[in-house]
Amino acid sequence: MIDKLIEQIIEKKSPICVGLDTKFDYIPQEFLSHEFSTDALTYAANNIFQYNCALVDAIADIVPAVKVQAAYYEMYGCEGVKAFRDTIRYAKNAGLIVIADVKRNDIGATATAYSSAYIGRTKIGEEELAVFNADFATVNGYLGTDGIAPFVEDCKKYDKGIFVLVKTSNKSSGEIQDLEFEHKTIYNRMADYVQEWGKECIGTYGYSSVGAVIGATYPQQAARIRETHPHIFVLIPGYGAQGGSAEGLLPNFDQKGLGGIVNNSRAILTAYRNEAYVKMPFDKAAREATLAMQRDILDTFDKNGISYDE
Amino acid sequence: MIDKLIEQIIEKKSPICVGLDTKFDYIPQEFLSHEFSTDALTYAANNIFQYNCALVDAIADIVPAVKVQAAYYEMYGCEGVKAFRDTIRYAKNAGLIVIADVKRNDIGATATAYSSAYIGRTKIGEEELAVFNADFATVNGYLGTDGIAPFVEDCKKYDKGIFVLVKTSNKSSGEIQDLEFEHKTIYNRMADYVQEWGKECIGTYGYSSVGAVIGATYPQQAARIRETHPHIFVLIPGYGAQGGSAEGLLPNFDQKGLGGIVNNSRAILTAYRNEAYVKMPFDKAAREATLAMQRDILDTFDKNGISYDE
Repeated sequence: MIDKLIEQIIEKKSPICVGLDTKFDYIPQEFLSHEFSTDALTYAANNIFQYNCALVDAIADIVPAVKVQAAYYEMYGCEGVKAFRDTIRYAKNAGLIVIADVKRNDIGATATAYSSAYIGRTKIGEEELAVFNADFATVNGYLGTDGIAPFVEDCKKYDKGIFVLVKTSNKSSGEIQDLEFEHKTIYNRMADYVQEWGKECIGTYGYSSVGAVIGATYPQQAARIRETHPHIFVLIPGYGAQGGSAEGLLPNFDQKGLGGIVNNSRAILTAYRNEAYVKMPFDKAAREATLAMQRDILDTFDKNGISYDE
Repeated sequence: MIDKLIEQIIEKKSPICVGLDTKFDYIPQEFLSHEFSTDALTYAANNIFQYNCALVDAIADIVPAVKVQAAYYEMYGCEGVKAFRDTIRYAKNAGLIVIADVKRNDIGATATAYSSAYIGRTKIGEEELAVFNADFATVNGYLGTDGIAPFVEDCKKYDKGIFVLVKTSNKSSGEIQDLEFEHKTIYNRMADYVQEWGKECIGTYGYSSVGAVIGATYPQQAARIRETHPHIFVLIPGYGAQGGSAEGLLPNFDQKGLGGIVNNSRAILTAYRNEAYVKMPFDKAAREATLAMQRDILDTFDKNGISYDE
């Protein structure tokens, strides 16, 4: 699966992932459907799905992937989870690669159930069903190998991928992740495991379908990880709203512009509130914000001799 | 919320939680409904919910709580999540305390969304809705304080509780959790955070609504944590099927039989397959298995001078 993602990145010259962290509050008033049913959760979920469809249509030709953040759907209950499922389907039908940002984690048998749900198959009698059927899922490795192995199995079996939390973008991520054991931080040790877990999933570009999450807010840490983990492909949150800059992304990338994909959620979803795009409809604004982000990254690549051209 | 749980434990003399990790395969053939719809996920989810209801009816008077493991519902898609929601409602209506075993984790803003979903409220316009509305949720603290704080806020605001993963029951839990930083393991450091996060949520029995998950398979580690963390109430998985013994539970408990609640899932859910109960219907078998577990724990308490009587 990592090869498919990389091919789209090269083709579109766009190492960018749009995060569909769609809160109901983000949807502009004039886009809301007028038929307010008696059930607020259904109303919210339906509007979120419609909003996502318009956004997917607006950016499908300029980015390779979207990331759908489960929390913002689960907060609207079963109806929200249905919007999550339908958004994944819609984005895949539009040709996009879909990352289910679920950060799941549990002991072996239960991790198997989670993996079935998001990237694997669920058996019911003789039937085997792809349930949410994302291309990638994010996972949390605090429980160690037996909680991750079922996901890795499904990566191999169904040509899927995962991103394991290594160094997260938030302020307090260091409380646990930066602790050092024998001169090695926990996040670095987690990266060692990620490389080990993914060693049989390395594709033609040298990157594994078992990748890592490393925040754009921690470029020095990203550089340290990259030194000793050449095969890890990185999902990079924290650009924009959280303070990460294009310069700070560089440690993740090789000279061909490969090695990572940068997520942006809020600044794109709510671009229509940004002064620069304030007179545009939200989908046009989102597209312009995505193009501006692409220019920012490609300009920075260019200054540092990184290029997608052969 | 921890006080309500403890009151039920004392009243029922039962520090036991039944885990509703209901896989479709666990349901005995003869209980399956005959109307096999064309949609396998709906069929599986409906049967799981009916099975759960029968189980809840069978054990509601002898245990204080059930734990509903999200993975085993998400694997059946939106229909499964509906069964998860309905199981929580049914168990609460039966007077049980419900732990949503979701192990959620994310950065602050997103953790807020997860907390809204499971123990807090979701705002839609002027409405504030309790969505899944469990009493407790399990969470993973790898991201540090800002990923946990929103849950703690909701614990205070809505009288709820959480259990943070500290030392999990699985074999490979030590890979990250047992690493040592300045002579303190990661799991012990996580326990320090748990105590800190929960210091404003301590109830009348001296335990906090912000508790920890510590596997029954690691009694020595539980003892070490208990020494320096007197206020942490412990959710203890791993008894039975995973190899934890009643003796091994003791470090978590004080002389009044308080300090923890022991989960058992598979050995109760599938008790009807156990030789001892093989001629019983599954719900009667589950009840007998729960009573046997209660005797095992209370006998061990008795031998060690622990009692629920004043």
